[in-house]
Amino acid sequence: MAVLRKDINELLTQTGPGTPMGELFRQYWIPALLAEELPENDCPPVRVKLLSERMVAFRDSEGRYGLVDEFCAHRGASLWFGRNEGSGLRCPYHGWKYDVTGQCIEVPSEADNSSFCQNVQLTSYPLVKIGDVLWTHMGDAATRPPLPEFEWVHVPGEQTYTSKRWQQCNWLQAFEGGIDSSHVTFLHSGGLKTDPLFRGAKGNEYNMKDTKPFFEVADSDGGLFVGARRNAEEGEYYWRITPWVMPAFTMVPPRGDHPVHGHFWVPIDDENCWTYSFDYHPVRALTETERQAMIDGHGVHSKNIPGTYRPTANMDNDYLIDREAQKRGETYSGVAGIAMQDASLQESMGPIVDRSKERLVPADSGIIKARQKLRKAAIALRDEGVTPPGVDPAHQRVRSAAVVLPQAESFLDSCRDAVKVTPGVAQSSV
Amino acid sequence: MAVLRKDINELLTQTGPGTPMGELFRQYWIPALLAEELPENDCPPVRVKLLSERMVAFRDSEGRYGLVDEFCAHRGASLWFGRNEGSGLRCPYHGWKYDVTGQCIEVPSEADNSSFCQNVQLTSYPLVKIGDVLWTHMGDAATRPPLPEFEWVHVPGEQTYTSKRWQQCNWLQAFEGGIDSSHVTFLHSGGLKTDPLFRGAKGNEYNMKDTKPFFEVADSDGGLFVGARRNAEEGEYYWRITPWVMPAFTMVPPRGDHPVHGHFWVPIDDENCWTYSFDYHPVRALTETERQAMIDGHGVHSKNIPGTYRPTANMDNDYLIDREAQKRGETYSGVAGIAMQDASLQESMGPIVDRSKERLVPADSGIIKARQKLRKAAIALRDEGVTPPGVDPAHQRVRSAAVVLPQAESFLDSCRDAVKVTPGVAQSSV
Amino acid sequence: MAVLRKDINELLTQTGPGTPMGELFRQYWIPALLAEELPENDCPPVRVKLLSERMVAFRDSEGRYGLVDEFCAHRGASLWFGRNEGSGLRCPYHGWKYDVTGQCIEVPSEADNSSFCQNVQLTSYPLVKIGDVLWTHMGDAATRPPLPEFEWVHVPGEQTYTSKRWQQCNWLQAFEGGIDSSHVTFLHSGGLKTDPLFRGAKGNEYNMKDTKPFFEVADSDGGLFVGARRNAEEGEYYWRITPWVMPAFTMVPPRGDHPVHGHFWVPIDDENCWTYSFDYHPVRALTETERQAMIDGHGVHSKNIPGTYRPTANMDNDYLIDREAQKRGETYSGVAGIAMQDASLQESMGPIVDRSKERLVPADSGIIKARQKLRKAAIALRDEGVTPPGVDPAHQRVRSAAVVLPQAESFLDSCRDAVKVTPGVAQSSV
Repeated sequence: MAVLRKDINELLTQTGPGTPMGELFRQYWIPALLAEELPENDCPPVRVKLLSERMVAFRDSEGRYGLVDEFCAHRGASLWFGRNEGSGLRCPYHGWKYDVTGQCIEVPSEADNSSFCQNVQLTSYPLVKIGDVLWTHMGDAATRPPLPEFEWVHVPGEQTYTSKRWQQCNWLQAFEGGIDSSHVTFLHSGGLKTDPLFRGAKGNEYNMKDTKPFFEVADSDGGLFVGARRNAEEGEYYWRITPWVMPAFTMVPPRGDHPVHGHFWVPIDDENCWTYSFDYHPVRALTETERQAMIDGHGVHSKNIPGTYRPTANMDNDYLIDREAQKRGETYSGVAGIAMQDASLQESMGPIVDRSKERLVPADSGIIKARQKLRKAAIALRDEGVTPPGVDPAHQRVRSAAVVLPQAESFLDSCRDAVKVTPGVAQSSV
Repeated sequence: MAVLRKDINELLTQTGPGTPMGELFRQYWIPALLAEELPENDCPPVRVKLLSERMVAFRDSEGRYGLVDEFCAHRGASLWFGRNEGSGLRCPYHGWKYDVTGQCIEVPSEADNSSFCQNVQLTSYPLVKIGDVLWTHMGDAATRPPLPEFEWVHVPGEQTYTSKRWQQCNWLQAFEGGIDSSHVTFLHSGGLKTDPLFRGAKGNEYNMKDTKPFFEVADSDGGLFVGARRNAEEGEYYWRITPWVMPAFTMVPPRGDHPVHGHFWVPIDDENCWTYSFDYHPVRALTETERQAMIDGHGVHSKNIPGTYRPTANMDNDYLIDREAQKRGETYSGVAGIAMQDASLQESMGPIVDRSKERLVPADSGIIKARQKLRKAAIALRDEGVTPPGVDPAHQRVRSAAVVLPQAESFLDSCRDAVKVTPGVAQSSV
Repeated sequence: MAVLRKDINELLTQTGPGTPMGELFRQYWIPALLAEELPENDCPPVRVKLLSERMVAFRDSEGRYGLVDEFCAHRGASLWFGRNEGSGLRCPYHGWKYDVTGQCIEVPSEADNSSFCQNVQLTSYPLVKIGDVLWTHMGDAATRPPLPEFEWVHVPGEQTYTSKRWQQCNWLQAFEGGIDSSHVTFLHSGGLKTDPLFRGAKGNEYNMKDTKPFFEVADSDGGLFVGARRNAEEGEYYWRITPWVMPAFTMVPPRGDHPVHGHFWVPIDDENCWTYSFDYHPVRALTETERQAMIDGHGVHSKNIPGTYRPTANMDNDYLIDREAQKRGETYSGVAGIAMQDASLQESMGPIVDRSKERLVPADSGIIKARQKLRKAAIALRDEGVTPPGVDPAHQRVRSAAVVLPQAESFLDSCRDAVKVTPGVAQSSV
């Protein structure tokens, strides 16, 4: 199948200011931090790098959130060292003070302080708490869309859990793992049997038995539905439906009554990304056991180095690979945990994989379509100012689903309801 | 106020061989090492990088100091591994031997050893001990100026103390902190109250009360006097006078009877510099308590990793920032110690700050004038061969001062004597 | 003497695909791994980087060795995480499986698996165990030469020992140390007296007494014989003969009845190389004491960080330099061990030394001739397709020798037999 030309790979992987894909990302609300990173008013500011821009986030004395240029407008000292007090963040070098909008509100050395300040403003973006996540929109305020409506951040707090981890590769190769349903049978075969947040579902059996899933990919308002069809009982198919909402929200099809999970893949710069990983249940609280398993790095979550969002198993320690466990088949690649199994392989491709060397197969059709759609949207935005899919919050009210259907049925027709968010109704799961 | 054009920023920050600012630095005697780094005859050689040149310093059997190209003229092995013995430094690879002038004095493999050696000479610079510092002059020997006469290295040993630390940014942004009197009120407010080498002076009160110092900057023979004027008692001003002697010697105005201190900022390469920090008292020995405080990293000194000149609190550990101490106001930025408060913010700007993004204010007038003066001197040297200010040792006999004057008096007129070095007379201090 | 032009230095030091020296190296069988790195069938694969190509080596269920492109042909995941089982290496991402020739033999997602696989083949090279080394030939299979016949890997296992270490510099400056007989008198003077694998030989005395060896360099079929002549007893010369077989095999002249040793210098990329170090005795088993000394890092071997081939003493810890031992003369450079004495100095020159700054002497004539020969061979290969010296296994059946000859005798005439491999006959050694 066709390989990706170098220039298209660059278009899709570069998200700094002024790049087509960077402008695309700037159309959306994206996760900037976990809410836990700014736990209280006047807490320490946090360094944030997104889409190759360096900023600090802070929460002021009134609980307002701000995301502003990291560097003081005066002589460029980092505001990460700043004093967060009295409804503003003060540069510790000469006391210049900014509010959450980046507006300078005090320059102590100036006699006519207020008129001087008026013209000093840091680049800043809104920062809004929805669920356990602080969201930002780094694009033009004039065309700022309504706030995101992903179900995961709108269910009650006891029904949801979100973690994040630093991934040392470009966002696209991380994201592509998220819509790649065919690798589960291999890379995660151990996890299907043992992971407390995956095991025990009937669907896992279909998953393991049929290594040749057939893929059907359909456009959705916000992106795609990737349907992976495997043989089930006589005359039936087991369908796993993975929704993608542009630019980078994906959900894993559910398993039994386990919470359903997914990811938001956010570029830090062109060689690093944040993987936000979430689990939620549409109709019930997470059990203590489930929540603890997530904290412990099971399911789609990772165990991180305390005080950081870097996984304990990482590139520098070969992901703590255990060749004996691999040999015994407990893990397929020797790496423990579903999250790090994905991350280790995605990072192993190099910071930005050379997609001109790929050899794609029909099982990659979700990935192929997603790339086409991203490219098309980025170019339409750049050349004609077209608002891309997924910006409208209505596009975000989707779910993944795992269903068994008679062979004759179309997954899209039969699952119209299953892939929609319906409050009070559980996910469709096998 | 005007920002600095990119090309001017490059001119001021680049000091490698052949650059205008590099040539300017090569007109002066500058600190190359602390004398303690070569503690005895035939001690181990020391790697030295200055103005982007890699060298080794050594002290031979007769106590002569040498500063020579790091690499053997033969096949380029590092002479840092060399044997310092028999009045010369011998390359351990094939035994080639050099004296302190870089002259090759033995090539064991050669039959006609002396005639061969005659034509082998390493680049070398003089290395002269004055006070606790080994000074070098990396420019043309033909126009070598007389030795430096800064008071700090000429008072008796018991009256002076010098330390150094590696700073991970360009020399200019480190130096600019040294003539920036307005940040004391903010960044060092904790130190004014608690540091054993700063606290207790009457002047500190004026410093803290008036956050809007007025700046008056005057040319001196060797550079500038930066006067910062704050309100004192009725009808009086508190003046703090910071002398700068080109290229990179600055002094902090004194406080009470504390020793007076200052810095010499020396480029290692374009992204690193050595900060030499000194304290001395013109008329009395340092007390044991004072000396110990300096060793412990108080005042302008830093606590370094044993066996190195790298601060214990550094970029890799976020300067051991203590957010609780910052919250309580014990430190303004969360970083402990006056030296590291400065260094942390200067390094936070990046290796070479982009000065085209600055927003300068009248409180920066010392910095603005210093940049103009540096640029003018570098260009005059390059284009017309003009010897720059500060080369003449007479220009170096200056002091900082802190005085209270009637409002009507000019600080320059009133302080003519205070800013001059007068042996046997104490610094003018409040 | 003439310095090396920049373009010639680049020609000699660059060995990536498509470079003239890279093509030269690809004419030969070269060491790829130690056999111990793939200790059993279906053991974990090993990452291998050679001549700037990244590969994995593995040993399949039948004991066949393979050296294949590190990255899966599908989407570029590293096969280092692969499952080595069932006579092939399986990518853990989607289960693609390859045999030792790099041929894809299974793509689980594909219905018509075998016809799809047929067209999927990873770049691969043969991997052949001879002695304790796995050899590869990275050039065109059509002109693949017969297997190497170096004596060291053909004597019975109890007579030979091989180690390897990572050296952080270009292969050429490591190799040049291997044919540089004149540095022994200096850098290794301590080792001649104390190293259990060097000390006690009569030849060492000649070595230490005469610091002005005369060099005579003669072409051999495969490269050079570098003869270093020193004064011995009245009327006699002590000759040390170092053979070089192209591209990078060198042997140290023997000492007494010690095992004889040598090296193979293999480019990893342009700034790193593997140093393979061996000891063997042509006619007897190594004693337990000798073998243990080699394991302990004596002689030409290094003590490595357990689980790695990086020396314990390395660039990051200044090679554990001991200035007191240097002062006392126990070591000449302060670095312990013959291997690390060489490596430390070669690495100290920088990743790729600038040979335009050299000042060569007659004692460097071996190095000068070797460079000329390499350059000539690389150009003859590139321009005319000439097979270079050393490819023919007959060229590889050489030995080093150390002999005392009457002054009138030619070393080449007298040593014709000594420098030839004669099974059952001991090395010629003094």
